Amino acid sequence: MIITVRNQKDNKQIDNLLKWIEDSGLQANVVKGETSTIVGLIGDTSRIDIDLVRSLEIVENVTRIQEPYKKANRKFHPEDTIVDVAGHKFGGKHFQIIAGPCSVESEAQVIGIAKAVKESGATILRGGAFKPRTSPYAFQGMGLDGLKILLKAKEETGMPICTELMNEKYIDEFADVDIIQIGARNMQNFDLLKAVGKVDKPVLLKRGLAATMEEWLMSAEYIMSNGNSKVILCERGIRTYETYTRNTLDLSAIPLMKEKTHLPIIVDPSHASGIARLVKPMSIAATGAGADGLMIEVHNDPPHALCDGAQSLRPEQFDDVVKSLSVLFPIVNKNLD
Amino acid sequence: MIITVRNQKDNKQIDNLLKWIEDSGLQANVVKGETSTIVGLIGDTSRIDIDLVRSLEIVENVTRIQEPYKKANRKFHPEDTIVDVAGHKFGGKHFQIIAGPCSVESEAQVIGIAKAVKESGATILRGGAFKPRTSPYAFQGMGLDGLKILLKAKEETGMPICTELMNEKYIDEFADVDIIQIGARNMQNFDLLKAVGKVDKPVLLKRGLAATMEEWLMSAEYIMSNGNSKVILCERGIRTYETYTRNTLDLSAIPLMKEKTHLPIIVDPSHASGIARLVKPMSIAATGAGADGLMIEVHNDPPHALCDGAQSLRPEQFDDVVKSLSVLFPIVNKNLD
Amino acid sequence: MIITVRNQKDNKQIDNLLKWIEDSGLQANVVKGETSTIVGLIGDTSRIDIDLVRSLEIVENVTRIQEPYKKANRKFHPEDTIVDVAGHKFGGKHFQIIAGPCSVESEAQVIGIAKAVKESGATILRGGAFKPRTSPYAFQGMGLDGLKILLKAKEETGMPICTELMNEKYIDEFADVDIIQIGARNMQNFDLLKAVGKVDKPVLLKRGLAATMEEWLMSAEYIMSNGNSKVILCERGIRTYETYTRNTLDLSAIPLMKEKTHLPIIVDPSHASGIARLVKPMSIAATGAGADGLMIEVHNDPPHALCDGAQSLRPEQFDDVVKSLSVLFPIVNKNLD
Amino acid sequence: MIITVRNQKDNKQIDNLLKWIEDSGLQANVVKGETSTIVGLIGDTSRIDIDLVRSLEIVENVTRIQEPYKKANRKFHPEDTIVDVAGHKFGGKHFQIIAGPCSVESEAQVIGIAKAVKESGATILRGGAFKPRTSPYAFQGMGLDGLKILLKAKEETGMPICTELMNEKYIDEFADVDIIQIGARNMQNFDLLKAVGKVDKPVLLKRGLAATMEEWLMSAEYIMSNGNSKVILCERGIRTYETYTRNTLDLSAIPLMKEKTHLPIIVDPSHASGIARLVKPMSIAATGAGADGLMIEVHNDPPHALCDGAQSLRPEQFDDVVKSLSVLFPIVNKNLD
Repeated sequence: MIITVRNQKDNKQIDNLLKWIEDSGLQANVVKGETSTIVGLIGDTSRIDIDLVRSLEIVENVTRIQEPYKKANRKFHPEDTIVDVAGHKFGGKHFQIIAGPCSVESEAQVIGIAKAVKESGATILRGGAFKPRTSPYAFQGMGLDGLKILLKAKEETGMPICTELMNEKYIDEFADVDIIQIGARNMQNFDLLKAVGKVDKPVLLKRGLAATMEEWLMSAEYIMSNGNSKVILCERGIRTYETYTRNTLDLSAIPLMKEKTHLPIIVDPSHASGIARLVKPMSIAATGAGADGLMIEVHNDPPHALCDGAQSLRPEQFDDVVKSLSVLFPIVNKNLD
Repeated sequence: MIITVRNQKDNKQIDNLLKWIEDSGLQANVVKGETSTIVGLIGDTSRIDIDLVRSLEIVENVTRIQEPYKKANRKFHPEDTIVDVAGHKFGGKHFQIIAGPCSVESEAQVIGIAKAVKESGATILRGGAFKPRTSPYAFQGMGLDGLKILLKAKEETGMPICTELMNEKYIDEFADVDIIQIGARNMQNFDLLKAVGKVDKPVLLKRGLAATMEEWLMSAEYIMSNGNSKVILCERGIRTYETYTRNTLDLSAIPLMKEKTHLPIIVDPSHASGIARLVKPMSIAATGAGADGLMIEVHNDPPHALCDGAQSLRPEQFDDVVKSLSVLFPIVNKNLD
Repeated sequence: MIITVRNQKDNKQIDNLLKWIEDSGLQANVVKGETSTIVGLIGDTSRIDIDLVRSLEIVENVTRIQEPYKKANRKFHPEDTIVDVAGHKFGGKHFQIIAGPCSVESEAQVIGIAKAVKESGATILRGGAFKPRTSPYAFQGMGLDGLKILLKAKEETGMPICTELMNEKYIDEFADVDIIQIGARNMQNFDLLKAVGKVDKPVLLKRGLAATMEEWLMSAEYIMSNGNSKVILCERGIRTYETYTRNTLDLSAIPLMKEKTHLPIIVDPSHASGIARLVKPMSIAATGAGADGLMIEVHNDPPHALCDGAQSLRPEQFDDVVKSLSVLFPIVNKNLD
Repeated sequence: MIITVRNQKDNKQIDNLLKWIEDSGLQANVVKGETSTIVGLIGDTSRIDIDLVRSLEIVENVTRIQEPYKKANRKFHPEDTIVDVAGHKFGGKHFQIIAGPCSVESEAQVIGIAKAVKESGATILRGGAFKPRTSPYAFQGMGLDGLKILLKAKEETGMPICTELMNEKYIDEFADVDIIQIGARNMQNFDLLKAVGKVDKPVLLKRGLAATMEEWLMSAEYIMSNGNSKVILCERGIRTYETYTRNTLDLSAIPLMKEKTHLPIIVDPSHASGIARLVKPMSIAATGAGADGLMIEVHNDPPHALCDGAQSLRPEQFDDVVKSLSVLFPIVNKNLD
């Protein structure tokens, strides 16, 4: 960490700062310039709150040199982490496709979709039982009843399941869930992160709506520092000024995150734009950018469910996406398995 | 709600859409144009999920005409809501100043600051017992012990207290807290919103880091639709591309939100920029923009706590801010009481 | 265009509005609701300034239904536009690779790179003679001398050239340039757009640093409405809050823009992130998303030019990128020709 | 400047970097760590292109310690710069109000408004002759004829005038203009900045739509380094994800820019939100934040010009704004003169 300090008439404030640095168990390397003094901190600065230092009156600028994440940092763990989900591996040369309906609506719906996507090549079944909705008046999901349907589908098809946890009080009910999903809106719900950090089960951590890559890694670090290192990251679009799409899918995050961290990272192309027509091109693009997998919404369009499944693909469209990807795998050195 | 639909070869899909609109209890007004058809929805559209409609293949564009919030909407409640906190009123011609330390550290610290800020004119005491921190390695607050200290300070000084709730499991422990604060990172933690919606106690709802005004109002609506209408909104800066400040304080949100909603709205100038030197000018600016109050961090700088209170003002600086504001109140038609 | 008007005590203001709509040659369709009145405008609304309408006191909300761009709009020109650059075609099933150095430095440098990239498969040579630089103290390019070097390279290699025009006063000197590039910072330099609109020559229009897709299309419309329909769009990353990358490459813009417009669209993966290591994965991703071509910086790293070419690829890295793409072309139905 | 370099197997690349630093006339201070090496650059780093250094393969991170602007930097010019416009001073304890119509439409309109705003306290007349418009189909301004009208109004009322220059080819025609305005969309039109840098006349430099404060200061530096130090900065709202307002007025930029630079800075509250109702509260807020002046649109609403002046205030509303400000001046230590 490099702290730039405005030169003062007397040295009292800077001496206080240097003493505080020492008390924190770090060494300070001071270079005095004409208008400002540069203080380099040597040692483990991950416990230093950069915002607090920045807010000091004498401080002009602070820069972290060491990243604040340790367990998620590729520097200290150069090999790719492989997260195993009932035999399906995330990371390294492996590629997984998680597919299923946005919301769980009925046993017939979920099992129908599960069978179809498995046939096309999907390896893990997704489905929302608890749904985070912007409006209190919108359907909030079937809750625990929805979870039961997912578990039934797992039994029927043999597919592992992935579903979102919104409240730590239900964590015991998620015992047979294979991947616990933490949604974008809860990426900095720190109590929830601590709770899933104490479970021995893969966690799919979606990037927050306006989270920097560093904040996202710090949220992974919350889970890992509580004991659970089975974290799968999921890019799902970030908030920008653009209004033609709901969010902007940040695909350059894929190769960049792979430099910063050893954790696997997948992409959800269904939620980013909110436009089903973009799922195919963005699935190909995400795979081309080096993603370790995809999470795709698929629905089975009975006439009475006009809207609910509309941002998802129909099974035959999903099949077409998977076929396109298979040609691409050799270029990016991946296998769907 | 206005839905623009691409003209199709046959009418099957648009007929499905129209049927679905009717089934939702709404009327559709259809105007056919050359390349697209415009469907106007008449009735209560607040239950319609705009993203779902937008994602339909035939849909080109959707616009809400009616706002999706009802209880928070000034149209249906033209008078300012006045939220009473132990006799201190938020809204209308009233102005409140909430002040206190960022984190609760000790009884002496909190009570010392409480007495000082009360003397200067603060009406409510704030202090963090549970602290949402980006890093798992940073101090997470004193928790329930911190809460006890705040309650002690309330007893000693007679000031009502405001502190953040991060987890619904502690809600019973907050029985004697006067204002429950929901932090920016939990603005869309819907389960937490529902929980405080069931309590009969003022809730201070901070704007999310990258929340639109509409999403912020929808989160207020979560609280209100669960039964609690005592919501105080708090602008605290939004995420932009600018890096000189941590966040960009959005003061135009003040007069605009006052058009959209009848709820009181205050400003936290301490967190937006992360720079203590900006607290005074931004407090004056926020008051000039029409805010119903301010929330300001104040600390008492003992030499050994160099950092923890650094983004806050010292009591004498806080006193200077309050004095400046008092000249401004007549211009904006407000009273500090 | 749909205008929502707050209901008023008398009808004077709304009558004025309706009269103004009629005077503008449009029809108004009025639906009166309980709290607001909805006015639908029928006719060619592209000349209506949406910001001006939005700013009227009685207006609550305005939405365009028709897009404000006409000549660039796919609705009125369903077939892909093919822009021919000396026999190399942009659009449809064609794919072009524009490559070359960031800045022109010497004849030997440019010709050396040109030969190398042509050998690998690049079809058009790029190079900056006039350089838009954030700092007045940074190298501003060789100017007209740089242009002469590019023309020399064109003669030597037979490759058409693409270079940036920053000032309309040099437009005559660009007579032998094959593609005039308009840089991101000049995307809304309307006088420059009008000037290149009067030339019969392909124009590469980069997306502005924080331009919406609609603004980008409106800038294309400036060129087209002045008579020049040979516009090639170029996505180069947009400004977001993320700081790990300089800009965020918006690849979902590719399939979406292809719905909105018939113009070809290419991607510049070198400038978006500012990180050379990301050029390969993002080139594959952009091609997978459906781009009509790429613009890639390549340099020839002599030891004394350590920095200037650093965000570019070396020729052998470029060769590797082109080889990877060739496997991808059949999936996206493109040919490099 | 601090460069963090990934440790390499051999030292060749870092030795090249160190040699290049020395060749640039700077000293390098190297501290070798376990996984990375930190290189501190000592000397005038303003000529170093930070993006180029960041793009080097071995570089992990670069931070500027010295700001890249020199002439605009308060460090090297601690006193406020006072820009004198025909006796009206910007900066220090002075406060100026620039007012007038958005677009020049007729002599009667401009002179009528000029007299009214002068009466209320405006000191400088504004009006657009050349109008930058997003759409090529919208009114582009009266051009040189509009300029003549402004000059006529100057003669009649004695008010200095401020108007926008969009193209350097008209610079001679601006000889009698008192303040040349550079619009937001041209903030990085570097050739135009160089051109007004060679003129001995105050320049009003609007902040770009998505410009960082540093980029804004670098654009001021372009003007100043070409010889013209009479630069007045103007905040006018930045682009964010929020859609209720057209732009987000960044008032915290006022006190922060005053720390970074000695140049005067004013605020344009009319364009930021695009909503006339917000002009009054945001004018008070901007003044409270420490602005050196305001630029406000005022129009005179004849019934046939329903739209053109609509985002502006009427003269009587403008008068009310100025009256409110006068009470505020003593708090912020300013005089309207």
